[in-house]
Amino acid sequence: MSKLTDVPKRILIGRALRSDRLGETLLSKRIALPVFASDPLSSVAYAPGEVLLVLSIAGASAYAFSPWIAAAVVILMFTVVASYRQNVHAYPSGGGDYEVAQTNLGPRAGLGVASALLVDYVLTVAVSISSGVENLGSAIPFVVEHKTASAVAIIVLLTLMNLRGVKESGRLFAIPTYVFVTGVFALIVWGAFRGLVLGDTMEAPTADLEIQAEHQGLAGFALFFLLLRAFSSGCAALTGVEAISNGVPAFRKPKSRNAATTLALMGGFAVTMFCGIIGLALATDVKMAENPAHDLLRDGAPVGPEYTQEPVISQVAAAVFGDGSFLFVVLAAATALVLFLAANTAYNGFPLLGSILAQDRYLPRQLHTRGDRLAFSNGIVLLAAAAAVLVYLYDAEVTRLIQLYIVGVFVSFTLSQTGMVRHWNRLLSTEGDPAARRRMVRSRAINSFGAFFTGLVLIVVLITKFTHGAWVALLGMAIFYVTMTAIRKHYDRVAEELAAPEGPSEDSVRPARVHSIVLVSKIHRPTLRAVAYAKLMRSDKLEALSINVDPTETKALTEDWERRGLDVPLKILDSPYREITRPVVEYVKSLRRESPRDVISVIIPEYVVGHWYEQLLHNQSALRLKGRLLFTPGVMVTSVPYQLRSSEAAKQRAKKNLEWNAPGSVRRGLVETGAKRPTPPNGKE
Amino acid sequence: MSKLTDVPKRILIGRALRSDRLGETLLSKRIALPVFASDPLSSVAYAPGEVLLVLSIAGASAYAFSPWIAAAVVILMFTVVASYRQNVHAYPSGGGDYEVAQTNLGPRAGLGVASALLVDYVLTVAVSISSGVENLGSAIPFVVEHKTASAVAIIVLLTLMNLRGVKESGRLFAIPTYVFVTGVFALIVWGAFRGLVLGDTMEAPTADLEIQAEHQGLAGFALFFLLLRAFSSGCAALTGVEAISNGVPAFRKPKSRNAATTLALMGGFAVTMFCGIIGLALATDVKMAENPAHDLLRDGAPVGPEYTQEPVISQVAAAVFGDGSFLFVVLAAATALVLFLAANTAYNGFPLLGSILAQDRYLPRQLHTRGDRLAFSNGIVLLAAAAAVLVYLYDAEVTRLIQLYIVGVFVSFTLSQTGMVRHWNRLLSTEGDPAARRRMVRSRAINSFGAFFTGLVLIVVLITKFTHGAWVALLGMAIFYVTMTAIRKHYDRVAEELAAPEGPSEDSVRPARVHSIVLVSKIHRPTLRAVAYAKLMRSDKLEALSINVDPTETKALTEDWERRGLDVPLKILDSPYREITRPVVEYVKSLRRESPRDVISVIIPEYVVGHWYEQLLHNQSALRLKGRLLFTPGVMVTSVPYQLRSSEAAKQRAKKNLEWNAPGSVRRGLVETGAKRPTPPNGKE
Repeated sequence: MSKLTDVPKRILIGRALRSDRLGETLLSKRIALPVFASDPLSSVAYAPGEVLLVLSIAGASAYAFSPWIAAAVVILMFTVVASYRQNVHAYPSGGGDYEVAQTNLGPRAGLGVASALLVDYVLTVAVSISSGVENLGSAIPFVVEHKTASAVAIIVLLTLMNLRGVKESGRLFAIPTYVFVTGVFALIVWGAFRGLVLGDTMEAPTADLEIQAEHQGLAGFALFFLLLRAFSSGCAALTGVEAISNGVPAFRKPKSRNAATTLALMGGFAVTMFCGIIGLALATDVKMAENPAHDLLRDGAPVGPEYTQEPVISQVAAAVFGDGSFLFVVLAAATALVLFLAANTAYNGFPLLGSILAQDRYLPRQLHTRGDRLAFSNGIVLLAAAAAVLVYLYDAEVTRLIQLYIVGVFVSFTLSQTGMVRHWNRLLSTEGDPAARRRMVRSRAINSFGAFFTGLVLIVVLITKFTHGAWVALLGMAIFYVTMTAIRKHYDRVAEELAAPEGPSEDSVRPARVHSIVLVSKIHRPTLRAVAYAKLMRSDKLEALSINVDPTETKALTEDWERRGLDVPLKILDSPYREITRPVVEYVKSLRRESPRDVISVIIPEYVVGHWYEQLLHNQSALRLKGRLLFTPGVMVTSVPYQLRSSEAAKQRAKKNLEWNAPGSVRRGLVETGAKRPTPPNGKE
Repeated sequence: MSKLTDVPKRILIGRALRSDRLGETLLSKRIALPVFASDPLSSVAYAPGEVLLVLSIAGASAYAFSPWIAAAVVILMFTVVASYRQNVHAYPSGGGDYEVAQTNLGPRAGLGVASALLVDYVLTVAVSISSGVENLGSAIPFVVEHKTASAVAIIVLLTLMNLRGVKESGRLFAIPTYVFVTGVFALIVWGAFRGLVLGDTMEAPTADLEIQAEHQGLAGFALFFLLLRAFSSGCAALTGVEAISNGVPAFRKPKSRNAATTLALMGGFAVTMFCGIIGLALATDVKMAENPAHDLLRDGAPVGPEYTQEPVISQVAAAVFGDGSFLFVVLAAATALVLFLAANTAYNGFPLLGSILAQDRYLPRQLHTRGDRLAFSNGIVLLAAAAAVLVYLYDAEVTRLIQLYIVGVFVSFTLSQTGMVRHWNRLLSTEGDPAARRRMVRSRAINSFGAFFTGLVLIVVLITKFTHGAWVALLGMAIFYVTMTAIRKHYDRVAEELAAPEGPSEDSVRPARVHSIVLVSKIHRPTLRAVAYAKLMRSDKLEALSINVDPTETKALTEDWERRGLDVPLKILDSPYREITRPVVEYVKSLRRESPRDVISVIIPEYVVGHWYEQLLHNQSALRLKGRLLFTPGVMVTSVPYQLRSSEAAKQRAKKNLEWNAPGSVRRGLVETGAKRPTPPNGKE
């Protein structure tokens, strides 16, 4: 592990952890906050702007409604945080929304939540990276001029990092997250001080623009609908709140209490930042429009297609700190970095959820075992490819991607909270202690309100955003749902077919004898080893078998065989068409026909080389023969490997793969043996 | 094999042959001619035009040199045919140029010939299909308007046909080839009759155009060089002549004599057609230019980029038969079809040559066994991809592709003929009989002249075409040469490492005992079967091993195990990180450390499903574990398959694959057991 090439990586993220040191990495609240909250905190980088964007449809005067919308988002945030504090106490295993829905509402609801979360991970990557690119672009124009390419490049970079097995490191998350939070608070405090105490006039770069309302003088239901749409967009600030509820096992003790405290802290930070930025945007006269080229006017004329609309946070920072000032650049960089970290949490969460789903046989079983590098890699590549496609299709435009985003989150919020209500009902039906009952009733009330409110928001989101793109997210969910159902059905069918019959006896007819056949092409070390091993097995009958594809070679083989005095009879099968597989399979079948109760043991000498391209040059007929024999009943197929010197390289690689740590191990916490579900993190981070 | 979908195929090419009926398919001369000669005969569709094209650089007056060039090509053709008649008698095994060079000039020359032939197969596909598209386009303008796309589409079609395992059928080849030959002869005879007897003035569609010479009044060395270039292009008529020498085993007896006769017939046809078309082109005043848009003038002005230059054969046909007449369309269709058949011969020849090279360990060994569908498929896809890339890069322009073409052919001609001279020298050094010696001296003289003349042409081709594109062909040859050398080196190194030491004993320490381990995850039919089989093997120690990834499941397993009274001890290994591979590998290693002379037999129950996507859902950990165990010394790995119902589908598929016939079987001829190289066809068809 201490290769020279690892040095930059180690500097970046600290020494890679072996999994047996995982137990040492329980998180303090100080570190847990940035690990789990980079997603919800980072969303304040785009959520306030999205609210203003939607309002601008009714003209700049509609911005006056933004404090009301902010208030609604704050109430929703408090509701969700309060609800999830109940989850954290009730499900300290870190089961998350999937477990809550699965346990209380049944497998279909659970699968629905899982589908929603999978789609949401994809969108977390797409939205966070697109927004990160926009924020980075406010400091480095080149990036925003090549927005789609930059976003895809960052997806590729994150993918490569995660494929290599980068471990989440608390410290790595902590620094930019705290810089970002401190920066935004400094922005709000300094802005308030300048405005209220010094009486400075702070002007955003867009303060002198005018907004051409798409619908001037909107009123009545139309206005109400627009406000709902703006609210829906503001709800983007809530994405990722549930992450902490999945990460409880990763906290230090008392786990649940620490998690609940962190949740409250996170909610407080998010709400303050969200409101502060909206307030500053109004104070500095920020103008944003859905279609800036056309709807923003400078001196009465549209600004035109060359105009780049800066994110609201960077416009506010320009007004308060000064455009291009040191603090402005630091905040832009921290914002971009936090957004990329938020995307990275999806890279960790996606395979973890996959692992839980695999345990419940909704996904291929190999996703379940930790450290199955190949399976994790497939998940990561799937996630990255889907996100990259979305980024490409939507030109890395946050405003368009956000339309797809919030559906999934609220599907899982609603189902999870509904599940929690059921959970308390179930407990209440058996609980006798009045104090405990009181606590439960209180919790149930909180979760009921949570379920109601998030359900309402879900309906609002669906109504206001369906045609704007939410249907894409729903389609994605449906695809995941159907696929996972099909996989589960397949596993169930196979399990039924495999089920062992009761009684002491095994499969139908008991086998009587073993007839072993060593396949021989020529006499070399692997052959000699295979013959030696086969003799040790003391089967009822042992013979060597060679396929005659070249009479000269076969003659040399038989002579050599006799000369060496190998006391195993050598049988030669003719193969005029130079086939290997067919004569062997037919010979095995004929043996089975003669004595149906015999088991045929086919022993194949193989040699092991180090590189895949070397592998291509060897053992291909053995491989195919093995594949074919597996379909022949009453056969066991034995490989006797002979390790060539070059196989040492492959051995080292395989060892390294074993020592590889799956992304997301940190937030998964310690493995607790003895629990029903030892490490059941899931849900969206 | 008698599915409904096979009906169109069967109508097209006759009932598919099982390989055990291969012996019935020896070819009569009447059928052998079209099978082997579609490539050389079809080249008269483009070779005359290429001669005129090059001459046009010096203006239309230079066309007067074309009879001289035709005469040179005829002499060359007679030389090559006479030379190969010697090959056919001397190497009736059908070894072809590769065998001749390998045997007489050593492995490097052999490999050089092989590389040249491989490149040539690619170019045969690219050139023949491009020319076919041009000829088809003279009847169906749409095709030539989308030339590259049409050519690639036809490559894809041929590839799919060959991947499915279409068998060459003599009759399939016979009809269009004979229609084509008859058509061209009719064209020549009717043209001569009209011109010489009736005194008609026949005018080609381009008769009224003028050629603007790129170099007016070329003389001296420059003119000589141009004539050499024109001659080089005309040599395209010789590609594929050597095919018959590879196909001798496919002829009826007396094989060599029949092959020699067919060779002479083919040479006669080709020469007559080539000269006839050049003569008619001069008589009907055909005008062709390298760069027609610019160099062809109509009424003094260039014809411009919309002008499509028709192939010379279709211009002549238009003049003689009348443009769009029935005979014109028939000839155009037959020409295109013969050209596509010529391309198809490369699809057959490429894997056959690969098989010979694999036998000599220059290519992966699995190419050697006949009917290895996967290996053949890889070869076919490689051929098709390379040809498609060339077609795409060169816009399916025959004129540009032909620059690459002839190098490979003449490399193999020259080396093969040089090898034949050596062959006769060797025989002459031992032969005593004066009559035989006389014959040998005569043959040696023919081959010497052949070697000298083809070598000279090779030098001319290299000089005149190197910068025009021949370097691409040389680069391709170099790549094949280096790759094949590297593969051979790898095989040699491995063979050395594997070589069995002399003496009766096997590898170093003789193993003492077998310790068998049955891996168990849960108790189902495959497990029970594996345990039953393992018991039969009577190893010295037998235990079952389960990895505890989930304590609850493990508890259920141990209880079930005891309840069922399986009299095999069950060992449980803890795996706190839910890994399977590592604990097993480490346990096996620890056993080996305790008793280094023990052999560990790991028995893995597997279940077999029918579809690849089902396979993805199962046995992945078993697969990975097996892969990992192969690198562990002193281990044998046994799979005990359990066939699920759905595996029946895969079994059927596998069976069908076994019955699949590799392309090119017909020209490969009957397998003769007992020969040193039973079926050694190779070389280019």
